[in-house]
Amino acid sequence: MSSPGHHRDREAPARCCSYHTVQRRLPVLRWLPQYSLWWLQLDLLAGVTVGLTVVPQALAYAEVAALPVQYGLYSSFMGCFVYCLLGTSKDVTLGPTAIMSLLVSSYAFHDPAYAILLTFLSGCIQLAMGLLHLGFLLDFVSCPVIKGFTSAASVIISFNQVKNILGLHNIPRQFFLQVYHTFQRIGETRAGDALLGLVCLAVLVGLRAMKGHIARIHRVELLSVRISRLIVWATATARNALVVLFAGLVAYSFQVMGSQPFTLTGETPQGLPPFQLPPFSKAEANSTVPFSEMVQDLGAGLAVVPLMGLLETVAIAKAFGMVSGLPCRFPGCQSLRSSHGEGTAVNAQTGVCTPAGGLITGTLVLLSLAYLTSLFYYIPKAALAAVIICAVAPMFDARIFRTLWRVKRLDLVPLCVTFLLCFWEVQYGIVAGILVSGVLLLYTIARPRIKLSEEGVLLMQPASSLHFPAVESLRDAMHRWALAVSPPRCVILDCTYVSSLDYTVVMGLADLLQEFQKRGVTLTFSGLQGHVLQVLLSADLEGFQHFPSVEEAGK
Amino acid sequence: MSSPGHHRDREAPARCCSYHTVQRRLPVLRWLPQYSLWWLQLDLLAGVTVGLTVVPQALAYAEVAALPVQYGLYSSFMGCFVYCLLGTSKDVTLGPTAIMSLLVSSYAFHDPAYAILLTFLSGCIQLAMGLLHLGFLLDFVSCPVIKGFTSAASVIISFNQVKNILGLHNIPRQFFLQVYHTFQRIGETRAGDALLGLVCLAVLVGLRAMKGHIARIHRVELLSVRISRLIVWATATARNALVVLFAGLVAYSFQVMGSQPFTLTGETPQGLPPFQLPPFSKAEANSTVPFSEMVQDLGAGLAVVPLMGLLETVAIAKAFGMVSGLPCRFPGCQSLRSSHGEGTAVNAQTGVCTPAGGLITGTLVLLSLAYLTSLFYYIPKAALAAVIICAVAPMFDARIFRTLWRVKRLDLVPLCVTFLLCFWEVQYGIVAGILVSGVLLLYTIARPRIKLSEEGVLLMQPASSLHFPAVESLRDAMHRWALAVSPPRCVILDCTYVSSLDYTVVMGLADLLQEFQKRGVTLTFSGLQGHVLQVLLSADLEGFQHFPSVEEAGK
Repeated sequence: MSSPGHHRDREAPARCCSYHTVQRRLPVLRWLPQYSLWWLQLDLLAGVTVGLTVVPQALAYAEVAALPVQYGLYSSFMGCFVYCLLGTSKDVTLGPTAIMSLLVSSYAFHDPAYAILLTFLSGCIQLAMGLLHLGFLLDFVSCPVIKGFTSAASVIISFNQVKNILGLHNIPRQFFLQVYHTFQRIGETRAGDALLGLVCLAVLVGLRAMKGHIARIHRVELLSVRISRLIVWATATARNALVVLFAGLVAYSFQVMGSQPFTLTGETPQGLPPFQLPPFSKAEANSTVPFSEMVQDLGAGLAVVPLMGLLETVAIAKAFGMVSGLPCRFPGCQSLRSSHGEGTAVNAQTGVCTPAGGLITGTLVLLSLAYLTSLFYYIPKAALAAVIICAVAPMFDARIFRTLWRVKRLDLVPLCVTFLLCFWEVQYGIVAGILVSGVLLLYTIARPRIKLSEEGVLLMQPASSLHFPAVESLRDAMHRWALAVSPPRCVILDCTYVSSLDYTVVMGLADLLQEFQKRGVTLTFSGLQGHVLQVLLSADLEGFQHFPSVEEAGK
Repeated sequence: MSSPGHHRDREAPARCCSYHTVQRRLPVLRWLPQYSLWWLQLDLLAGVTVGLTVVPQALAYAEVAALPVQYGLYSSFMGCFVYCLLGTSKDVTLGPTAIMSLLVSSYAFHDPAYAILLTFLSGCIQLAMGLLHLGFLLDFVSCPVIKGFTSAASVIISFNQVKNILGLHNIPRQFFLQVYHTFQRIGETRAGDALLGLVCLAVLVGLRAMKGHIARIHRVELLSVRISRLIVWATATARNALVVLFAGLVAYSFQVMGSQPFTLTGETPQGLPPFQLPPFSKAEANSTVPFSEMVQDLGAGLAVVPLMGLLETVAIAKAFGMVSGLPCRFPGCQSLRSSHGEGTAVNAQTGVCTPAGGLITGTLVLLSLAYLTSLFYYIPKAALAAVIICAVAPMFDARIFRTLWRVKRLDLVPLCVTFLLCFWEVQYGIVAGILVSGVLLLYTIARPRIKLSEEGVLLMQPASSLHFPAVESLRDAMHRWALAVSPPRCVILDCTYVSSLDYTVVMGLADLLQEFQKRGVTLTFSGLQGHVLQVLLSADLEGFQHFPSVEEAGK
């Protein structure tokens, strides 16, 4: 969890190289010395359970990212090991997520070289953001933007898998084209894939519902009850692995019998790729794509992927790490969590003790890469599609539209902009959403509400601070209500709610004072806060008059 | 004067095609029917006087823009005629200005084709801004940015003319290179140019000072006094024309005597260029530069030039149009005015009656194009340089640094950023200044001041409204002061100064309420304004408690 700046309030002044500092930078040192056998048992149980969820999901997310299936596994184990050394929150597991896979699919163009470079550069950018204390940039991604994006992502990813459930091939990546081609070619549906996919979906939904209904295991109950409950719980928790295993067995039986009604995953290379630097250039048929061109191809991905990556990690860590007192930066949006909160949620439920649980999970992934790749051949794509759809469907939040309508209608604008544009291109949706919420924010600042009332003279009261873009709006209001009427009217400007003034506002007020003087009326100030008054006095405005309260000003 | 939206408050509901509507769109119809001989006399006097200022300045500004000298005149007459039809403010004259010339020089690359295309596209963009009601964008150019830019422009333009006064050739355009080369080659100074330039400067400064000291002409005084005063006034007002004329005569005499100690303006084509569409492509030695490439070459100029153009026009119109009750959008920055306020100021002083004064000025420019171009040959560049330096020197405002130090130190940041970066490239300075003031603005919004005090429990009072980027800061403060301490503390959040809440803030508060509940302490709200309370109630927060005042909440 690398939210820049969120450790701020825990940073007591410490000597540079003390053991405490090293411990803070390398949190593994905090728990490793106290590690016990009992912890190992719990971590082992949690690690294996998470592994059974992570492995099938890794295969599935590779499909979402439009990359060869083994890349899902490659990206699953590294995070486990690194986080074990550097992580602070025992519940978090790092790995591929549906959202990230979707984003990567927009930039990787089915080419692992691009995906690897994007991952590497995103890491560099996140690191730079941390070092430069740019974490506050995340504050400018508002809740409606995140909700809009995750809801759209849920729809996009789910629909993207419909083609696998129907057994259709060569469907384009773009959402609208995908919808068009999927429905146009719905007649080509392969019965085997469709049947298997629907069965898997039904089983997954059923198991998930069941899990929600198991009561907690209590020590006082009969052993048989406890054991049967544990079995149900384990089945429900490892449902992804079970469904994939079951589907794979069915496919294998058909293969042995000489027919194959399912679309299979196919060959997966065994073992690990060589450990090497990311590809800074790329050899093509008869030329080389240089680094600069690859970076240009990645384009907006280099901003969107690191940003969303940080947001996602922080969202998860906050949801589960909060209990340990970590203040995390993320405005209360639950939706990102469900996307890779699965492993994390399992961790929390199985009572994981230390980040060592991640070691077990990582080892499991490595083992599956070493020994199971030949079996991955038989996994039907329809089963993976069912796993994906079940994982991402909860990210769709239909209630948010009603909630925003009730709570704050203006926030529907960034929500809808993000939601709708995401179907065109995910990054356009996010960027447009951030821009729209930024513009709305600036607009409210540029056009503060000004309350008008009559107290003998005209009383004008800005409802919030006056920043430089608001000068024009204030001037307009003064002209409309006091100077452009005949005869011109005296005004009391009640600054009770004004907590800061900048130079542009001060100059605007100076101009207004002059204009009032020219028209033979007065502009009086009241309710100035201490430092605001100081700013106005230091500017030495001609004709500046102020009173502590409206009553005294009105006399 | 085309500030989009500034007519807002004068737009009474009117039928679409009534005479009144036509009149509003074509203001010439307002004054033309009542035009009288007396008005004509006044307009004639004003028009001629302005013309005597405009013609030499037009020649000089063409030099600033690095364009052939006749382009200054071309751009001077069109504005006069168009404004005469469409203008509302009788005092305004439209034409080339020092600032615009400097900006154009950055994008035109000594090539009129680019300058013309830039002008045309800038007009289109300004028109579009008007139609789309984007005038509020101007509000985001703060006073310090404008001050920084105009002060830098004054230095850049003045120094740019030093080479002409010294008679140096082939000095590069970039400011720093210019400084370097000018000083390096100061030994090559041509005595004739330097002497003439300094004399012209001295005369101009002297005449300007004189003009400031003439008392108003009163009818009661003796005719001889009145006439002598009028002569002094006319000399001082037409000083640019007189100095250029005098310098030209000197140069001509030398020419006739067979020697030429001055660098002259040289050949100027007579008459007008053919009336045609702007060049949408450009023929070069052996290829054509297409439209798209030209637009790309203009680059940031297409944002900077229309924006600064609007700002400048609006600034002038405001300074002189205010008296006629036009509310104009411009935060009180006087500095842009002096750059083309010259003609406008003269207009105001000579008692111009209607925009018809512009007709006379325009005709004068046309006449000089028709009959005087052969004489322009003899105008020494040093004299034009003196005219320019005198015109732009007043734009430098040294006091602003001290004023800002006194009034609002934070505003020194955008001022200095703009001022210094302008020396590198003018557009970088403006864009960086706008961005810096925007970031400072967003920062103050993202990090509102929160006042802490003890009222039995902890009392937290945000000093201004809470917008979505502020959630994190609020959460951090709550953690630091209430949740991360042991034992955790109860908090009253006093929202007296909070005038709006968005959904992200509401969700952040919901999360905080949960966290407080988990720790067994309470978070209570007080002083909620009506609609803020409504938003919070509609969000249906768990554990939400509010009291009208801090005292009641503290009980």
